[in-house]
Amino acid sequence: MPIVELHVLEGYGPDEKRRLGEALTDAVRMVVPAAPEAITVMIHEMQEDDYYRGRSRRKPAPALPDPCELVRTYLEAMERRQIEAAKALLGDGFTMYFPGTGGMTKLEELLEWAAPRYRFVKKTYEGFDAAQTEGDASVVYCRGTLSGEWPDGTAFSGIRFVDRFEITDGRIVRQDVWNDIAETKAQA
Amino acid sequence: MPIVELHVLEGYGPDEKRRLGEALTDAVRMVVPAAPEAITVMIHEMQEDDYYRGRSRRKPAPALPDPCELVRTYLEAMERRQIEAAKALLGDGFTMYFPGTGGMTKLEELLEWAAPRYRFVKKTYEGFDAAQTEGDASVVYCRGTLSGEWPDGTAFSGIRFVDRFEITDGRIVRQDVWNDIAETKAQA
Amino acid sequence: MPIVELHVLEGYGPDEKRRLGEALTDAVRMVVPAAPEAITVMIHEMQEDDYYRGRSRRKPAPALPDPCELVRTYLEAMERRQIEAAKALLGDGFTMYFPGTGGMTKLEELLEWAAPRYRFVKKTYEGFDAAQTEGDASVVYCRGTLSGEWPDGTAFSGIRFVDRFEITDGRIVRQDVWNDIAETKAQA
Amino acid sequence: MPIVELHVLEGYGPDEKRRLGEALTDAVRMVVPAAPEAITVMIHEMQEDDYYRGRSRRKPAPALPDPCELVRTYLEAMERRQIEAAKALLGDGFTMYFPGTGGMTKLEELLEWAAPRYRFVKKTYEGFDAAQTEGDASVVYCRGTLSGEWPDGTAFSGIRFVDRFEITDGRIVRQDVWNDIAETKAQA
Amino acid sequence: MPIVELHVLEGYGPDEKRRLGEALTDAVRMVVPAAPEAITVMIHEMQEDDYYRGRSRRKPAPALPDPCELVRTYLEAMERRQIEAAKALLGDGFTMYFPGTGGMTKLEELLEWAAPRYRFVKKTYEGFDAAQTEGDASVVYCRGTLSGEWPDGTAFSGIRFVDRFEITDGRIVRQDVWNDIAETKAQA
Amino acid sequence: MPIVELHVLEGYGPDEKRRLGEALTDAVRMVVPAAPEAITVMIHEMQEDDYYRGRSRRKPAPALPDPCELVRTYLEAMERRQIEAAKALLGDGFTMYFPGTGGMTKLEELLEWAAPRYRFVKKTYEGFDAAQTEGDASVVYCRGTLSGEWPDGTAFSGIRFVDRFEITDGRIVRQDVWNDIAETKAQA
Repeated sequence: MPIVELHVLEGYGPDEKRRLGEALTDAVRMVVPAAPEAITVMIHEMQEDDYYRGRSRRKPAPALPDPCELVRTYLEAMERRQIEAAKALLGDGFTMYFPGTGGMTKLEELLEWAAPRYRFVKKTYEGFDAAQTEGDASVVYCRGTLSGEWPDGTAFSGIRFVDRFEITDGRIVRQDVWNDIAETKAQA
Repeated sequence: MPIVELHVLEGYGPDEKRRLGEALTDAVRMVVPAAPEAITVMIHEMQEDDYYRGRSRRKPAPALPDPCELVRTYLEAMERRQIEAAKALLGDGFTMYFPGTGGMTKLEELLEWAAPRYRFVKKTYEGFDAAQTEGDASVVYCRGTLSGEWPDGTAFSGIRFVDRFEITDGRIVRQDVWNDIAETKAQA
Repeated sequence: MPIVELHVLEGYGPDEKRRLGEALTDAVRMVVPAAPEAITVMIHEMQEDDYYRGRSRRKPAPALPDPCELVRTYLEAMERRQIEAAKALLGDGFTMYFPGTGGMTKLEELLEWAAPRYRFVKKTYEGFDAAQTEGDASVVYCRGTLSGEWPDGTAFSGIRFVDRFEITDGRIVRQDVWNDIAETKAQA
Repeated sequence: MPIVELHVLEGYGPDEKRRLGEALTDAVRMVVPAAPEAITVMIHEMQEDDYYRGRSRRKPAPALPDPCELVRTYLEAMERRQIEAAKALLGDGFTMYFPGTGGMTKLEELLEWAAPRYRFVKKTYEGFDAAQTEGDASVVYCRGTLSGEWPDGTAFSGIRFVDRFEITDGRIVRQDVWNDIAETKAQA
Repeated sequence: MPIVELHVLEGYGPDEKRRLGEALTDAVRMVVPAAPEAITVMIHEMQEDDYYRGRSRRKPAPALPDPCELVRTYLEAMERRQIEAAKALLGDGFTMYFPGTGGMTKLEELLEWAAPRYRFVKKTYEGFDAAQTEGDASVVYCRGTLSGEWPDGTAFSGIRFVDRFEITDGRIVRQDVWNDIAETKAQA
Repeated sequence: MPIVELHVLEGYGPDEKRRLGEALTDAVRMVVPAAPEAITVMIHEMQEDDYYRGRSRRKPAPALPDPCELVRTYLEAMERRQIEAAKALLGDGFTMYFPGTGGMTKLEELLEWAAPRYRFVKKTYEGFDAAQTEGDASVVYCRGTLSGEWPDGTAFSGIRFVDRFEITDGRIVRQDVWNDIAETKAQA
């Protein structure tokens, strides 16, 4: 049965409302085992002059970008070595952690670190999971397998990976990477 | 401003309502950059005789367990080698994937696999993230560091890990594990 | 999708709320071709001190009886010739119209009229239909077949009938009767 | 006091909303003896991108025709012997029952049956009552008096009738007719 | 927390809605000591064909003028001796009471009464307070200080005053005036 | 038509809800000229575990006292010279202004000031008006006539007065008094 009603200031587009409709449905389903068909979401948009908080009208804040899309865009830019495009998606204090590294704050550091490890690497995605933290950050996990070439030119593929991203104010502020590269090499 | 109203059949306890209140707040915040203080959730419980779908009354389904709590309970049981308690939390078709393994379906397989790798291992948690998939499964990620003893008795600690769990109908049906054990060994 | 919410003063019982839930569902379905499963009714009961009209609290009016039940009770009393019980269900100005009669206002008139026509008659119901008029009256139609004995003692059965009742303030104020008795006799 | 709120997908016209407003008011009045003035109906139209069931947007189904209007149109067509126009309003499995007939499925059968009974007949309406069944069918009763000419050319009038119609998916699927023609002839 | 929702027929402008938003916020705050920031007002405008009372559509009544603005306009007209403009704002039965006068019903009476008392007088406003009575009248109090010239041409200023106005149907029907003129003269 | 819905945390008593019902009705009527009978207020009380702001439950704040009652209690205490009881109703920074006085902060000052002016004074109330300011203060005006005895023992009566009170956090913080005492003496 659950019925969710969202009252929100006018100004969100169809895609943003779809994301709200899906996220609210999912939020209910994490607690209530209702079939999706039995969960209704209604979004009630309020015009600015129909809404008052503290006797004052408010402006709607622009929607945050879809965090999964943001991560996908970033990963594609990195895969193509479009470093400037990738940097544009990073927020202040961005830090990344790869297997065996400490925190790296510059994409150039990563490239340098990767150079002796593989000629190139491509991600095949198995899925994305997104969640909102208690704080301001959204979290995105993407997982799948890596393929590419070792420094000696031999190919590899099917190596499991998972990346975790924290996104604040529409920018990536943290990336954590785990994968089976070392395990694969150890078994080789 | 966003105000969320949830209409749901009576029968959920304070803790389950708190989970709903938090999940609905978080769902909104993934799209709308409102301060938490500006997001209100109201839960309207409906008595059974006040709600009709298709001219019929409905029974509320019991709440699903908190997936993070479920995972935490499972991981603690495994750490203490309480295999039966852990098994009770697994659903049909449970499969787990560890670095370098294919899918394993029995906890005993895991113990056998782990035996030559470490004497024991403990998890220190840095955080849990939970999300609902489009389907019936909830997903929980837990991450942190591993400590324990290698087979030769030397201690290790601070090895990053992340586990991903899929939970359906209140049971764990899949576990994926990534960590830096191989990387650590390779660097040693 | 349609979702109906009814706000009503506290004081109606489960059966009365079920009747409201069904009537509201049916009202929607007369216009919107939604599957019953897709129509939700929520009844929100208001306590007396939570509701103000014109700055004043109000008392809930006792529910009207189910008009179909009322008619059924009346017809059963008549069939058993429990005239006083039947009379107790009639309102001021009660008038009834049978095939070939003008308006009759007393049940005794009816008995007198029927005496030369049949020894007794029983109704087998095929169905009831109830509707609310624009005015205060509810209308109930009941239809089915008549069986009984003619004055000469021969049996009859399967004669179609339909009765229409108007009910105001929980009392029957008009009855119109149509049936195929004359047609049956003419064909005999 | 009762206040009814209907949430429905955008796409219904003023006349359809008026029918909903009236039907919902009437539904409440069949149970709660409130003065009409005290019953409020609010229709909240939802845009398609503001409504989600099972994470999906829905299309509004076109409104069903007003069943009383449909019946009136059918009866007028029949009175004018516009058989094709009348047929267009009939649904699959249409069956009609007149006094003394079994079920007839073709309008031509009816004309044949009526031919020896009257030259023509006209209906003067006293009222229509419409109700929704538990199933998909709406039911319409229309009642009044018949006038016309007997086969010998003599006129008749003032003969009571009632017709019951079942309408499914906007088409008439059943007609039941009762009247006092036989009674009138018997008394003549 | 308090959240106020107002459902009202479409037809009120932004300024009228702002007045509603403020008045509803203030109404809550007179009872509930919530910070203004914690009080939300949502105005839901209903189109005419989405609202039914007693099965009928209704027309929205034009908004009443802001009573404080009305009083301010009246007082300014009086100060400038624009008697006709002031009269246009008075309703039937208008009566005014000044210190030591009985009820006066014509503005000319007031001018005559004032003539021997001061050459002219100006109001400096410290504030307006408006309230709705249980009946149809709104009440406005305005207070501040008077300055002007005595009949002998000497100036005065800083004399406290308060005026109370009753406004019905957008017209002033009563004015009560208190001030310290007599006290000031007595002390002089 | 206007319908007001108030959602508020559970914890307010029947009298406090009546005050809310009246104040919300009055707030609407100051803008919309609807008959009181056409204005509905519904109060929806939320249990603490059904309401979340910023992911957190909230406690309802105790209701503010009825400001008119507070003023009436204060004025009665003053009339009976129950100074301590009156003081208990005053807030920090309390200041009062009487005709010809500057601001007085102690009730004893007032008594001293009054001593040479009248032996005693009683208030006959004609009415109270209450309003909420934009800020935290409620404002109450009470008006009527004064009666009592002059210092020489002669009686007076029928002298108009109006008092304005500001109340913050349930305590009186300011009193402004106007009356016709000086005018009356001047005319004597």
